[in-house]
Amino acid sequence: MLAVNFIEQKKQGKEHKPEDIKAFIDAYVRGDIPDYQVSAWLMAVNFQGMTTHEIVALTDAMLNSGERIDLSQIDKFKTDKHSTGGVGDKVSLILAPLAKAAGCVVPMISGRGLGHSGGTLDKLESIPGFKVGVSCKEFTQLVTENSLAMGSQTKSIVPADRKMYALRDVTATVKSIPLICGSILSKKIAEGINGLVLDVKTGNGAFMEEYSESRKLAETLKQVGEQFGIKVKAVITDMNQPLGNAVGNWLEVVECIDVLKGQGPSDLIEVTLTLTTWMVVMSGIEKNFEKAKDILRELLAKGKAYEEFENMVRAQKGDVEYIKHPENYKQAAVIKEVLAESTGYIKAMDTEQIGMISLNLGGGRKLITDEIVPEVGLIVKKKIGDKVEIGDMLCLIHANSESDFETAKANYLQSLKLDMKPVEPKPLIYESF
Amino acid sequence: MLAVNFIEQKKQGKEHKPEDIKAFIDAYVRGDIPDYQVSAWLMAVNFQGMTTHEIVALTDAMLNSGERIDLSQIDKFKTDKHSTGGVGDKVSLILAPLAKAAGCVVPMISGRGLGHSGGTLDKLESIPGFKVGVSCKEFTQLVTENSLAMGSQTKSIVPADRKMYALRDVTATVKSIPLICGSILSKKIAEGINGLVLDVKTGNGAFMEEYSESRKLAETLKQVGEQFGIKVKAVITDMNQPLGNAVGNWLEVVECIDVLKGQGPSDLIEVTLTLTTWMVVMSGIEKNFEKAKDILRELLAKGKAYEEFENMVRAQKGDVEYIKHPENYKQAAVIKEVLAESTGYIKAMDTEQIGMISLNLGGGRKLITDEIVPEVGLIVKKKIGDKVEIGDMLCLIHANSESDFETAKANYLQSLKLDMKPVEPKPLIYESF
Repeated sequence: MLAVNFIEQKKQGKEHKPEDIKAFIDAYVRGDIPDYQVSAWLMAVNFQGMTTHEIVALTDAMLNSGERIDLSQIDKFKTDKHSTGGVGDKVSLILAPLAKAAGCVVPMISGRGLGHSGGTLDKLESIPGFKVGVSCKEFTQLVTENSLAMGSQTKSIVPADRKMYALRDVTATVKSIPLICGSILSKKIAEGINGLVLDVKTGNGAFMEEYSESRKLAETLKQVGEQFGIKVKAVITDMNQPLGNAVGNWLEVVECIDVLKGQGPSDLIEVTLTLTTWMVVMSGIEKNFEKAKDILRELLAKGKAYEEFENMVRAQKGDVEYIKHPENYKQAAVIKEVLAESTGYIKAMDTEQIGMISLNLGGGRKLITDEIVPEVGLIVKKKIGDKVEIGDMLCLIHANSESDFETAKANYLQSLKLDMKPVEPKPLIYESF
Repeated sequence: MLAVNFIEQKKQGKEHKPEDIKAFIDAYVRGDIPDYQVSAWLMAVNFQGMTTHEIVALTDAMLNSGERIDLSQIDKFKTDKHSTGGVGDKVSLILAPLAKAAGCVVPMISGRGLGHSGGTLDKLESIPGFKVGVSCKEFTQLVTENSLAMGSQTKSIVPADRKMYALRDVTATVKSIPLICGSILSKKIAEGINGLVLDVKTGNGAFMEEYSESRKLAETLKQVGEQFGIKVKAVITDMNQPLGNAVGNWLEVVECIDVLKGQGPSDLIEVTLTLTTWMVVMSGIEKNFEKAKDILRELLAKGKAYEEFENMVRAQKGDVEYIKHPENYKQAAVIKEVLAESTGYIKAMDTEQIGMISLNLGGGRKLITDEIVPEVGLIVKKKIGDKVEIGDMLCLIHANSESDFETAKANYLQSLKLDMKPVEPKPLIYESF
């Protein structure tokens, strides 16, 4: 089928044949279909959507556009988690060693920060020496030896996604359920996993703000993933405020160390425990959800998860001294408080804006070529439902200049909505299915 | 505004600001915005549409992307006609010299065949020697000296449209009312006209098949055109069967010569007279529609329009001998009849398919680089409502090989729908406003 007719078919809301989707993606990866035809098609998909049948074909075509990691020599259930992205979402850094401590095999390939949302790779790389860029061979070796590896997508894995994602990013076609599904699932399935736990974020700091949209995404991811013969569990969690308190790469690592040592903020612990529990249940290690959760709680309390974190950092060439003594890490030049200028209860937080504050401090990228500044960010001190008096500390900003601090402070104050009446806290976990 | 935000704005169905539209189009023409962003935007426009305000800004930006023909030294009303395209639509070749004979000044820039629909330039070029590729200067000179010129869009006129049209053609974004409006009106206004008569086709051989869509297009063209200070008259005409009988470049020229000499098919005469009458009325030569039409009828009957046609062909270096003696023109190798194989009344004709038959015989292009074969095509002998007996001639095909003829014949038979009951003929002209 001619590319123009393929685009026309989607424009008219018709269903593509799997073989046509495959031919289109293959030709695109080969360079036989130009970006300008693909971007028109992506926009048509954005408006017309895709059937499950089509998304399966898209995911399959993307998956087969490159190399797949073969973990079949590991005779155990391999499981991973994926989050659709948010602010302060540092779950992977705790979940991966915790799941490993519980007996799971965790081959985890993560992404970088995107827009206002942080990325696991950037957080890991804030640990001096930590190597995320591993080849398929090295990755397989790490998983075989340690039952755990956290790496970045190599060039050989799902090249279709790398090409298409860069195009989506500049053509306003990122927020499309079929395209998100194809992108996430092709990369995850290429890891050689048997099971996947999905943390689908919903709220004003998520890519899908509306609950109905988040649910639709979760359902579609589950449906399509299962067609590839893997177990899928979807958990919809709140992203109407940062998860935990720390936002910023190294600050988040420090918060993870706290949790791994049995401390840290309760919302972060609860989300992490829920997601990790599903990995344990899925792996067949403990079938009862509550029992599995108790096991994990104990692993945290006993420092077992922390030990696995140290092991992983060591295995991937990170400097463990900084994990042991985070206080020795380079500090931001200006660490100052933002104080409340009025009284009330925190009703809402503009979570996307809080993510952007961290990005603008240097914690994220405005251009692909920007370098991350690991030590900057902020520590949230009051969250939704908390009572605030004038002069209370709202957050602590870690900036590298006074002017950066002033901008961050002004934006932070703007990002909060206060109410005189007490505010009902939001649910943290909406549903799991 | 970043291009990606501009695309996002349209994706969300928001209204662009005129200055943002101008900046986007200007940057595209300069090469600062890549095709892949423009095609995503074109697809978003296809789904979300544009307000009149936006279409005016788009047309203006396109118009100002290049040179404009300055006919201000001609102190008369300058008028042109544009058709949205169809099969057998040869009206321009009669209308232009006829309008000139009536005293109009006609600067006409036309297009080439597109898909199943023929193009005025291809028809004119079937006249040996006829030069359509004239510079702005030559065009202005022709109009100044002869009050009539029929040319092609030069590289310097509306470069934004040339670039964008090529992109629309390969990204399934041709059939979009705002984009059609911008494309048509920017080119027409760049001619330096004071008035424009629009022949908006509707039916299965038109780009807009549905009446409601054709009407919407006509209304929008009129509204937007008037914002540029020109008079606009829209006429919606039928394209559920070829106009006239001839389909194919030279065959259509011959049919035009017939009409110019006071003969030819009545539907072609009626559409041409109506459109030309509006040009005469608009120019203020004769304000009464019926009187103006009578004047034109007489000009045809007396051969005055024919004289002007000969003059134009001569002025643009065409060989007038072939106009005087069409019988000397090279004939197709195979000229054979298609006979009826059943009895009934012609209920419907697949007009797009009939256009494709001519294209496949060599009368149109499958690739931009294809050369037109001027002598091929077909002459329709039975039209909607006509009674057909077995063995009646349905059409006469002019092909350059037996196998071409056989394919054309089979497709032609397929394109007709017969009914046993008498069929009401379709209206020819739906409305003028």
